[in-house]
Amino acid sequence: MLRFAVIMAGGSGERFWPASRRARPKQLLRLTDPDLSMIEEAIERIAPLIPREQILIATSELLAQPIADALPSLPRENILAEPEKRNTAACLALAAAHLEQRHGAGQEMLMAVLTADHQIGEPERFRATVARALDFAAAEDALVTIGVVPTRPETGYGYIEVAPENRRSAATTDPEQPLQVLRFREKPSEAIAQDYATSGHHFWNSGMFFWRVSTLLQGLTQHMGDLARGERAMVAALAGNTAAATLRDVFLTLDDVSIDIGLMERASNVYVVPADFPWDDVGAWDALERTRGTDADGNVVVGDAVLVDVRDSIVFNEPGIEEMAVAVVGLEGVIVATTRDGILVCPKDRAQDVRRAVAELRKRGRERYT
Amino acid sequence: MLRFAVIMAGGSGERFWPASRRARPKQLLRLTDPDLSMIEEAIERIAPLIPREQILIATSELLAQPIADALPSLPRENILAEPEKRNTAACLALAAAHLEQRHGAGQEMLMAVLTADHQIGEPERFRATVARALDFAAAEDALVTIGVVPTRPETGYGYIEVAPENRRSAATTDPEQPLQVLRFREKPSEAIAQDYATSGHHFWNSGMFFWRVSTLLQGLTQHMGDLARGERAMVAALAGNTAAATLRDVFLTLDDVSIDIGLMERASNVYVVPADFPWDDVGAWDALERTRGTDADGNVVVGDAVLVDVRDSIVFNEPGIEEMAVAVVGLEGVIVATTRDGILVCPKDRAQDVRRAVAELRKRGRERYT
Repeated sequence: MLRFAVIMAGGSGERFWPASRRARPKQLLRLTDPDLSMIEEAIERIAPLIPREQILIATSELLAQPIADALPSLPRENILAEPEKRNTAACLALAAAHLEQRHGAGQEMLMAVLTADHQIGEPERFRATVARALDFAAAEDALVTIGVVPTRPETGYGYIEVAPENRRSAATTDPEQPLQVLRFREKPSEAIAQDYATSGHHFWNSGMFFWRVSTLLQGLTQHMGDLARGERAMVAALAGNTAAATLRDVFLTLDDVSIDIGLMERASNVYVVPADFPWDDVGAWDALERTRGTDADGNVVVGDAVLVDVRDSIVFNEPGIEEMAVAVVGLEGVIVATTRDGILVCPKDRAQDVRRAVAELRKRGRERYT
Repeated sequence: MLRFAVIMAGGSGERFWPASRRARPKQLLRLTDPDLSMIEEAIERIAPLIPREQILIATSELLAQPIADALPSLPRENILAEPEKRNTAACLALAAAHLEQRHGAGQEMLMAVLTADHQIGEPERFRATVARALDFAAAEDALVTIGVVPTRPETGYGYIEVAPENRRSAATTDPEQPLQVLRFREKPSEAIAQDYATSGHHFWNSGMFFWRVSTLLQGLTQHMGDLARGERAMVAALAGNTAAATLRDVFLTLDDVSIDIGLMERASNVYVVPADFPWDDVGAWDALERTRGTDADGNVVVGDAVLVDVRDSIVFNEPGIEEMAVAVVGLEGVIVATTRDGILVCPKDRAQDVRRAVAELRKRGRERYT
């Protein structure tokens, strides 16, 4: 059974402004590794398991070229441009259509849906987990996801719940057996997150999925009929044997909904492979503390900067840019992020509100800085 | 009696980094007026009283050309370059030597020593005060200074004390009579500053001086004999009638001491003209609150910047530079100052410590940013 990876890389990543821009979002930044962008890391991580010819990138039209430039080792036709911004369900229907049109002449295909902008440690363990999920998806009519064993009561992530009798003991061996999913849980309150973090039967929703293309399409037919019809129309459009319906025309009709809500939360054949590799969604600047680690003063310093009496802060002076001298004096718990033409200063606990600053810049007609 | 102004403009102004640089210190920045640098303001302020031909600027060799460029209306020969960094006593001896050599053939000259980097409001009132000080200096063998009536218990300024019986009533008319100075007081503690601010017989030391050149030289002869001899040697060097002693050779032998400590604190013929025009030494970034005023959120914003939930802060994005988007989110009481190639972030109450950041940049071999 041919195995493909689909890496979803359409995010716009405003929360890493000024480093992130419309045409250079989080997945194209070197946030977690000093030498590789996050999407390069994603490719390197999966390539030992799935050859590059079978790795597709799903992204926006704006990002297709920058991503192609960043990934010269990938065949250019493997970079799929979504004609317009939609959510993950439409993105995956488009990827499925491409796979069916290119390779699907009667043969079963396995699809691993991966993320481009999360940090994952211990790649060997990651690949073992992915292999286990793919093997299970190959053998069963299952929609499989990876659930990360929580290491803290995180309120910023969604959770996956399995039955309490499937409670995970701390001493399980790796790789773990897939468990049937009871339900998905939205981002919890702090009290509930405390419970989830220690329950043994809640996992962080990693946003990764594994299924046979045929199982995905069955699921879409059952739970998202319009999307299933759209997928078939896109296969026809790609084959060039529909008269009017171009790919774009079809794509624009697709619902703007996530695959989690549209399919995973409705289907009954959903399984989770528990995983305990280090995982972080690198959601905003404050994530650098976890992904990069802190020095003796509790600071993360990326690039060159002078810190005088600074503690528990994140200072990012775009590496490789030697044109900016950054000095921070006497502060605690702040983020100072700078690039050639943009500067953000913000307390760590307001890292989510960077979006408000970006919105305000756009409102003031300074889009070119966003 | 010919009247001259000597504007001391040799300061290096590290505390306004990144706007201030070695070759562009505070006096060349537009910190208090959106259209004029501080030294341009100083010229405009005194020009109605003393013609430009009689205004000298004393500065460093590094700054002579930038200042000449900034002040095209001044004769180039009126910009005096000190051969090396010395304190104000040597600076004024050099200025006196130039005046004697150029104009001093037997005629009395009056000298107003002014500052290039302080903010002074109500220029009419300022000029009336200067005129009063000059008239007194012309009539008496007096070393005259201007003392600013305190408006707050400032611990960052030196004070001038007069006898308690000369206590100033709130209702004095302008211009005020000169008072004999009892003593100079160093920067006080907070408790003492509270006392000085309300005593009625303490004034802020403005660093401005008024005297006949002959009175200055008498004072130097009595209290700073070496400097008096140096001044005469410089007159001879400027006239070109000393063999070996060039101006530089003489200047390098002069004591590195302020005129306050070397002369004013020792002489008995010292007088102060109380002044109640608005005055600020614009010592560091936090001064912008006073010199520019704050908006409804207590912020000072110079140049373009996006502020989201920011209060009581100072944000300076070098005006005229449209290359930098600055966003500050969720902070209180901070300074964010940026130029094309430098960024400072610092709490307002640490504004003095900007010098430490500049020192650290130099230590790290990043002098070109300082």
